[in-house]
Amino acid sequence: MLPLPNNSAILLEPHELQHRLDRVASLMSSSTDAMLIGDAANLFYLTGRVIDGWAYVTANARMILFVKRQNEWLTGDCLVKIHKPEQIAESLGLNQPARLGMELDLASWSKIERLKKVFPQAEIVNASPIMRQARAVKTPHQIDLIRQAGVMHAEVYKRIPGLYQPGMTDVELQIEIERLSRLQGCLGIFRISGDTMEVYMGNLLAGDNADTPSPYDFAMGGEGQNPSLPAGANGTILKPGMSVMVDMNGTFNGYMTDMTRVFSVGDKPLEPLALKAHQCSRDIHDALREMARPGVKASELYIKAEKIAADAHLREYFMGHRQQAGFIGHGVGIEINEAPVIAPRSRDLLQAGNVIALEPKFVIPGVGAVGVENTYVVNDNAPLECLTSGCTEEIIALDA
Amino acid sequence: MLPLPNNSAILLEPHELQHRLDRVASLMSSSTDAMLIGDAANLFYLTGRVIDGWAYVTANARMILFVKRQNEWLTGDCLVKIHKPEQIAESLGLNQPARLGMELDLASWSKIERLKKVFPQAEIVNASPIMRQARAVKTPHQIDLIRQAGVMHAEVYKRIPGLYQPGMTDVELQIEIERLSRLQGCLGIFRISGDTMEVYMGNLLAGDNADTPSPYDFAMGGEGQNPSLPAGANGTILKPGMSVMVDMNGTFNGYMTDMTRVFSVGDKPLEPLALKAHQCSRDIHDALREMARPGVKASELYIKAEKIAADAHLREYFMGHRQQAGFIGHGVGIEINEAPVIAPRSRDLLQAGNVIALEPKFVIPGVGAVGVENTYVVNDNAPLECLTSGCTEEIIALDA
Repeated sequence: MLPLPNNSAILLEPHELQHRLDRVASLMSSSTDAMLIGDAANLFYLTGRVIDGWAYVTANARMILFVKRQNEWLTGDCLVKIHKPEQIAESLGLNQPARLGMELDLASWSKIERLKKVFPQAEIVNASPIMRQARAVKTPHQIDLIRQAGVMHAEVYKRIPGLYQPGMTDVELQIEIERLSRLQGCLGIFRISGDTMEVYMGNLLAGDNADTPSPYDFAMGGEGQNPSLPAGANGTILKPGMSVMVDMNGTFNGYMTDMTRVFSVGDKPLEPLALKAHQCSRDIHDALREMARPGVKASELYIKAEKIAADAHLREYFMGHRQQAGFIGHGVGIEINEAPVIAPRSRDLLQAGNVIALEPKFVIPGVGAVGVENTYVVNDNAPLECLTSGCTEEIIALDA
Repeated sequence: MLPLPNNSAILLEPHELQHRLDRVASLMSSSTDAMLIGDAANLFYLTGRVIDGWAYVTANARMILFVKRQNEWLTGDCLVKIHKPEQIAESLGLNQPARLGMELDLASWSKIERLKKVFPQAEIVNASPIMRQARAVKTPHQIDLIRQAGVMHAEVYKRIPGLYQPGMTDVELQIEIERLSRLQGCLGIFRISGDTMEVYMGNLLAGDNADTPSPYDFAMGGEGQNPSLPAGANGTILKPGMSVMVDMNGTFNGYMTDMTRVFSVGDKPLEPLALKAHQCSRDIHDALREMARPGVKASELYIKAEKIAADAHLREYFMGHRQQAGFIGHGVGIEINEAPVIAPRSRDLLQAGNVIALEPKFVIPGVGAVGVENTYVVNDNAPLECLTSGCTEEIIALDA
C-alpha cells in the first residue's frame, strides 16, 4: 500500500488533496490502475504546485511524487528523488501497474514512447481525458479561488476608463491594462492546454480589427502586432464609433476567470445595430443562466444561444462575421480551455461544480466586436452563479 | 513536381524562402522524403507567419501548405484547404512519401498516431531534430531581425534606472519594465520549445530570492509570486546591498535576443565578493568571444567558463548556489531554447550563423545574482558579434 501523501511536498490541505485524489481515482477505476502525470497544469491540480517530475496516482487514491530536482522545502514520505524515469519502475518494485495511464494528448510522442519502455508489461491507457474530466468539476476550494480571481478581474475592468487617453492605439490601451492587472496581482501567465492557441496577456480588439481572421481557436480574431502572433490588437487608433472589446487575463492565484466587456470611445454611442447585438448577448446570458443546470447538454446551450441570435436577425454577425467561431463557451480553471465545451457537437453534459465562461459575441462591420463574457459556476438547484459580476455589463464609455 | 511556393500564403521573400527550404532539404535528404510540420515556431520559420495547419516540405525543397481556415489573404498555388488530415494524403495523390518526417519531440502522442494512420505505408522519421538543426543556423535576414531585437532590448535596459522608486518590490519594478518593453514594441509572447519551462515576460531576481530553487530549466531560479508559477520575482522589497538581476523578454519581431544586466539599489555598491564574481562573468565573456569559432565544441565553451570560475575560487557560486544549472548558454531565435546547447555534455559543434546567448552567472548568498548575458552571432573568421551591446555591462545603480 502506498503512503497517504500528506507532507510538505504537497501544498494542498489534506482534506482538499483527498477530495481531488478520490475524484481522480473514481474516474480511473474502470479503465486503469495508475497514472503517470507530468503536465504542469495537471501537477498543479494534484499537488498545489508545479514540480519537476511526475505524480504517480493509483486507482485507490494514493500518490507518489517522483521529482528530478529535490530541495529542502520539498520533502516527505510520498517523495522520491530520481534522475531518469527508469527509476520510477524500480521504485515501485513489485507494485507494477497492469494498466498505466499516460497523458497521450499532452506529452510528446517521443516522451510517451520513452515512458512506455520503462513499463514494458503495462497496457497503456490515455490519462488525458481522465484528468480533463476530473478537473472539469471544481472542488469548493477551487471555486473559492476562482471566485477571488473574478473579484480582482472585475476590479481591473472597472478601472479601464481611467487608463484611456485620446489618440491612443489599441496596443497602448492594452499595455496600460496589462500593467494595471499585474499591479492588482495578475500573474501574467495564461495557461492553455494543447497547441491551438497562443496569447500573451489576452486580446483587445478595436473596430474592424475584430473581423480579421486568426489561425487560433479563439472566439474572436484580430490581426495582431506581428505575423508571428496573429491575434489581437494591431495598432488601430481608437476613434469614436468603434467598439473596444477587452478580453484579458484573469489569472490571479493559479486559477483564472474569463471575462469580456465592451467600451465605446469618447461620448459617441455605438450605432444601433451594435447596441442591439450587445443587448442580444445579454439576453443570451439571461436565458442560459436559467437553463444551465446539471444534466443539461452543453450543445443545447449553444443551440439556444444561436436561436436567440437568429430570432433577432443577428445570425450573420454571431461569433464573428468574416470568420465565425464554432463555440460560445468553455470550461475554465487552471487553463482557459477546460471541459465542458459549449459547442453544437459537444457531447458534454453540465455537472454541478463546472466553471464555465460564456461568451456570446457579435462582430458588426464598421463598428467591431460587442457582447459580454462572464464566468459562471453550475449549481444543483439554482441558476448559474456569476463570478465576474463586479463590473457592469453595459457598454462603458472611454472618455478622458 | 510540387509547385514552387511563391505566393501570398508565404510572407517571406522568395530568395529568403528558398534559402530556408534548401537548408531544410539538405538536412532531410539522407533520412526522409518529406516532412509534415505543424508546430507554430517551425511554421513561422518556414512561412513567416503562424498558420492553422501543416507545411508539407519535400527533400527537393518544395512546400505545400495545408490549412484548416482559409482566408482571402491566404491564397495561392501552394495552398490547399482541408478539414481533416486525411485530405493531405488524398491531395498528394500518387506522390505519397516513402519516408515521412513528423515532429515526434513536439506533437502529442495522440496527434502523431492520428497522422500515422493517414500515411499507413510511410516509414515515420523524427522531423524535430531536422528542424532544430535547420533553425540553429540563421540566415543573414534572420540575423538582421535578431540584431534589430537586440537594439530594442538594450534600449529598454538602458532606461530601467528611470523606472525605480525607493521602496519598490521586485514585482513592481518588473511590471514597469514589462510596460516599457511593450511600449518599445516587445510582443510579450515568450516562445519556449517543449515543456521544461514556463514564464510570463522573463525573470527579475532580487537578493536571496535568486538562490531559491525552481522546478524549471532556467539558469537561475526564484520563488515566484505563486506556486503555480514557481520562478522569478517573489515580492522582495528592493534594498541597498542587494543585486537586482534583470533577464527579460527581447521578442520584438518574432525573433528574440536574450540579455541580462545587474542593478544595485541606491548608492551602496555590492559587496566585494559580488563585484569580483560579476567581473569574472565579464572575463568569461571576453574569453569565450575569442574562442567561439565554427567547429569548436559547445562543451569546450562550458569547460572554459567553469575553469575561469574555478580559478577565481568562485566555483561554488557558479550558475547558482543552492541549486546549480548545468549550462551557460543556448541558441536563441524564434524560441529561447534553440540549438546549440552550451553544456558540458553537449555534442553540438559551433557553426557560422549560430546565434547564442551566453549567461555565465553567479549567486552570492546575502547579495543575489550577478553576471552578464549577451546574445552573439558565431562568425567564420572573427570573434563573436555581440547583438546586445547597447547597454553597459557594468553593475548599474538604481538611484531615484
